[in-house]
Order: sequence, then C-alpha cells, then structure tokens
Amino acid sequence: MKTVVVGAGALGLYMGAKLQRAGNDLRFLLRSDYDVLMEKGLRVNSIRGDFHLDGIRGYRSPEEIGPVELVLVCLKTTANHRFADLIPPLLDENTVILTLQNGLGNEEQIVRAAGSRRVVGGVAYTGVNRDAPGSVDHVAAGHIKIGADAGIGRAHCEKIAAMFTQADIPCEVTPELEKIRWEKLAWNIPFNGLCALTGRTTEELMSCPALAAEIREIIMEVIAGGNSRNLSEMIPASLTDKMIAFTQNIGPYRPSMLLDRSRGNPMELEALFLVPLAQAAAGGVSMPRTAMLYALLKSGLTPWPPDFGPSTEG
Amino acid sequence: MKTVVVGAGALGLYMGAKLQRAGNDLRFLLRSDYDVLMEKGLRVNSIRGDFHLDGIRGYRSPEEIGPVELVLVCLKTTANHRFADLIPPLLDENTVILTLQNGLGNEEQIVRAAGSRRVVGGVAYTGVNRDAPGSVDHVAAGHIKIGADAGIGRAHCEKIAAMFTQADIPCEVTPELEKIRWEKLAWNIPFNGLCALTGRTTEELMSCPALAAEIREIIMEVIAGGNSRNLSEMIPASLTDKMIAFTQNIGPYRPSMLLDRSRGNPMELEALFLVPLAQAAAGGVSMPRTAMLYALLKSGLTPWPPDFGPSTEG
Repeated sequence: MKTVVVGAGALGLYMGAKLQRAGNDLRFLLRSDYDVLMEKGLRVNSIRGDFHLDGIRGYRSPEEIGPVELVLVCLKTTANHRFADLIPPLLDENTVILTLQNGLGNEEQIVRAAGSRRVVGGVAYTGVNRDAPGSVDHVAAGHIKIGADAGIGRAHCEKIAAMFTQADIPCEVTPELEKIRWEKLAWNIPFNGLCALTGRTTEELMSCPALAAEIREIIMEVIAGGNSRNLSEMIPASLTDKMIAFTQNIGPYRPSMLLDRSRGNPMELEALFLVPLAQAAAGGVSMPRTAMLYALLKSGLTPWPPDFGPSTEG
Repeated sequence: MKTVVVGAGALGLYMGAKLQRAGNDLRFLLRSDYDVLMEKGLRVNSIRGDFHLDGIRGYRSPEEIGPVELVLVCLKTTANHRFADLIPPLLDENTVILTLQNGLGNEEQIVRAAGSRRVVGGVAYTGVNRDAPGSVDHVAAGHIKIGADAGIGRAHCEKIAAMFTQADIPCEVTPELEKIRWEKLAWNIPFNGLCALTGRTTEELMSCPALAAEIREIIMEVIAGGNSRNLSEMIPASLTDKMIAFTQNIGPYRPSMLLDRSRGNPMELEALFLVPLAQAAAGGVSMPRTAMLYALLKSGLTPWPPDFGPSTEG
C-alpha cells in the first residue's frame, strides 16, 4: 500500500520506519529533519528491538509525492492549520487518510481541509520520544487501534490494520473509536495538563496526596464527559483506578505537553482540552477542573520552573 | 476599653494605631518589630490621613500584659497554632476576644485554645500593607463589621463597634457575619488563589479572557458554597458582577497570599480554602475549581516566576 507519513515527529517516524522496514512502499514528508534523515537514515531505539533504517524516501513537499493509497497523519494537532496545504496533493479519489493524532476534532478538520470523506481515525498507544534529529526512542507499548466506522468499509479498514500488524505495530479495528479516544483523554487531560502546568513529572504529581486526589477527580470528569456523548458502550468508572495504577507503574514520566512547553513549542490545547470541553458541554456535562486547567495553560500567565530550561508562556 | 492587639502585622498595627491615637488604652503584643516600634514609633501612610504614632506600649509576652477587656486578634491564620500560648494570659472572665482574621474557622479555634466562649468574629474591609518595619500603608477602604450573634450580647458588641467608629474605623454590628464572610471569600478565593499560583496581579489575570471566565466561575462556586450554609439571607448571584467590577476598579493589585508566597511566608490555605471547602461539602455543595486551586497551592509543586523574588514552594 503506497503510503506517505505526514508529520514526521516521533510517532510518524516510528510508524513509518516500522512500515518501511516491513517492505511497504513508504514516503516521508519532511521539513527540518530532511538533511539528516536523507544522509544518515533513522536510528530507532525500541523496546521491541533496535534497528537502523537506511534508504529513507523523504520529500520536502506533497506535490513531489503526488497521490498515494494511504496518508498517515501524525502531525501535532497544533499544526492542523497546514492540512489544506499538505494533504490535497496526496489524494486521488481512492486515497484513505488515517489520523493517529491526539485528542478530538482532527478527522473533522481533515474532512474540511482535504475535501475528502475517506478519513479514518485511530488512537496510538505508543510511547515515543525524539530527542535528536535522526533518532527516535520507543519506550512504551506500541500498538494502535483504528475506527471501523469510517466511510471506506470495514474490509478496507481491516486491510490497513493488517499492514500495521504485519509491520510489528499490532493494530485492531474497533467500533468504539470515540470511547477509546475519551478513555485516552482521561489520562491525557490530567497528566499532560498538570505536568505542563507545573513542570513536574507524573510521579512528582502523584506523590502529593492533594494533587493525586484532584487527578482522580479530573479523570472522573473526563469519563462523565465521554459518557455524555451517547457512546455505544459506557466508559466504566473503574477506568479511574486503572489509570492511576498505570501511572504509578510507568514511574517519573514527562508527558508530551510538558516536553512541548519545555521546548517552547505550542501545546495541543485545542485537541486535548477545548474540543473535549465543548463536546461534553454539548452533552450537558461540565468539566470544571479541566476548564480551569485549560484556562491556566491557555493564559500564558503561569510561570515555568527556571531550572527546567526554556519555555514559551502559552 | 483596655485592649491588646495580638498579631501586629499590617492590619493589627493599623487598627491599634488608630485606636491608640483616639485615646484608647492600647497595648501591642510584638515580636520582630519590637525594637523598631519602641524606639521610633509607627508611621501610618493612610488614604484617611497620614500620621506618626509615638508612645507605643509594646510587650514581648502576653504574661507581661495580663488580663484586658478586649483582645483584638489580627494574627495571620497560619499562626493560629499560637492561640493557646498567646491568648489565655490576657483573659479574665469578662474579656472579649474579637478576631478580624481572614477566612473561616478562626473563632472555633480560639474558643478551643483559649477556653473562652466570649469570642466575637469580624470582617475587615481594610487594604493595608507593611513593606518595612515601623511603617504601614493603608491603601483601600478601612471599615470593619463585627458579628452580633456572639455570646456577649448585642449591647456589648455595639460598645466595641462604637470604640472602633470613634477611632475612625467605621464599624457596623451585623447579624449576617457568616454571609459577609462568604461574600469576602468570593473575592479572596479566586484572586488570592490565582495570583499566588501564577505570581500575577489581579489585572494581569483579568486581562486574559479564559482566566477571567474561570474567575467568574470560581466566584459562583463560592456563592453556592455559602448559600449551602443556611444563611439567614442568601448571597445574590449579582455578587459576581460586583466582584468583577470591584476588581477592575482597583487596578493591578497584589493580594496578600501572593505577597506571602513571594516573601516565603506560609499562605492562609486552611482558613481561605480548606475550611470553606469542608463547610460547603457539609452543605452538599462541591467547589471543584476551588479544590483544584487549593491542591495546586498546597502541593508546593507549582513554580514561581524567577523574576519575582524569593518564594517557598508550599
């Protein structure tokens, strides 16, 4: 399946590298890393096995690539305004667009910007970091789930899933995409939000009883928000304990929003906070702690620990 | 009325200075400022007229003073653990104790620590700062209200009120003490809390639309909390607009909790957050934004702007 990765950050590089290594026709749309990746290839340090990928087919513009069968969107959601420039040149009438981006609202933006309804949503359970150009660290999990209810038919979804699974990225087709998105938000909202606000790791937050109690409350808010959305299956209250236990297991973790803020990059506030808040409100559920966390991060007025390195305020 | 001021911070010094200047028998229980005040007196820079007060009767221990008619408690609530040492030596069976401290729960703590039920609560509407020893700046308002429902009889309360009013501290006896306390909390909780959290002035917070909206929500939470307490008169929803307008009028203000944190002093989290949260919960009302603000401040994990000067984290 002729595939192009749009958004070659940590997740996009990892996914693309695995797909290419498994023999798929894979291209990368690249910007800042173009020179390094074309000259030296990509180093993948992975809990599923380290490897080095040579022969990367990188491009600087989507026009150079032209239509493909699958566009794999791994852009930071803060770059969603680039959809209209990046995606249309990659499409013909059969192209499927799969987004593995965080949070809510991305498929809708792709549909609007790309003028195609052949958009599949997915959720990545893949802990990846990129500290240096030309190198990706895969540190946790590594599977994905993609929606069954996109307009391309279940069989086509299964074919895409098989391609990932054959490339050692276990992939499941799920009829519960909206539910698992909210379940992921139940972790992302408290931990991305509070870590980015304070500059602290998940472990430091959990070590404070008052904050640990608030984190549980935030998770419960998000579960209630999700359950206001007429999901085909309710998110169980037991998810709270599961999320807390998961967090205790992974130790001193720095979520992506904390890293974004520490590097002076924009934070994914719209996809992770604003759209969920709006959807829950439409379902009649308020998420007051989430709203306050959003406002504090959005304000650009919260200080940043001076010993943590640079940051933007906003 | 033989009176001693316990807690000679900005408020205590201002109140005591006005009472002494008006001819009352006034003593100060002093600690760090003892030498400066005894040698040089007290400078009061006030919107109601500057003056200098000589002949201060300061004492280092309550035993040196002995029983008085009125104990005026202006301690920071973070020093309430000192009640048991400071207050009993000042009491005989007729002594009245008036607390003008912030927040909730102070009378109850005094009753327990001092073994006296002759405790009157009050609320100070008096903007005072103390930047240097021996000097107090009075910058806003200047009146107080005291409760009518203490166990000493309305006439006795009126007598105390008259003493303040005659000393140019307009004082009203109110049957609505609990209500006006919650009304003051409706300002103190959002602005003390958020200013202390962010290191920003009230004006900076209000200039951010997302935060200004959250501030309104916090005020509404506190009003709901107060109204769960079976007040004899409900707090009106219109208080929200009034508080916002008041805040816009006072310009770039630094609330006391921000100053406390910036100076490395403990913050009044129990009286301003924890007791109100508990009382509202007992009334069946949750204050989720207030709870999160409390947890963030209590955690000691929130950073402090490096350009603001020293702070403790907690």
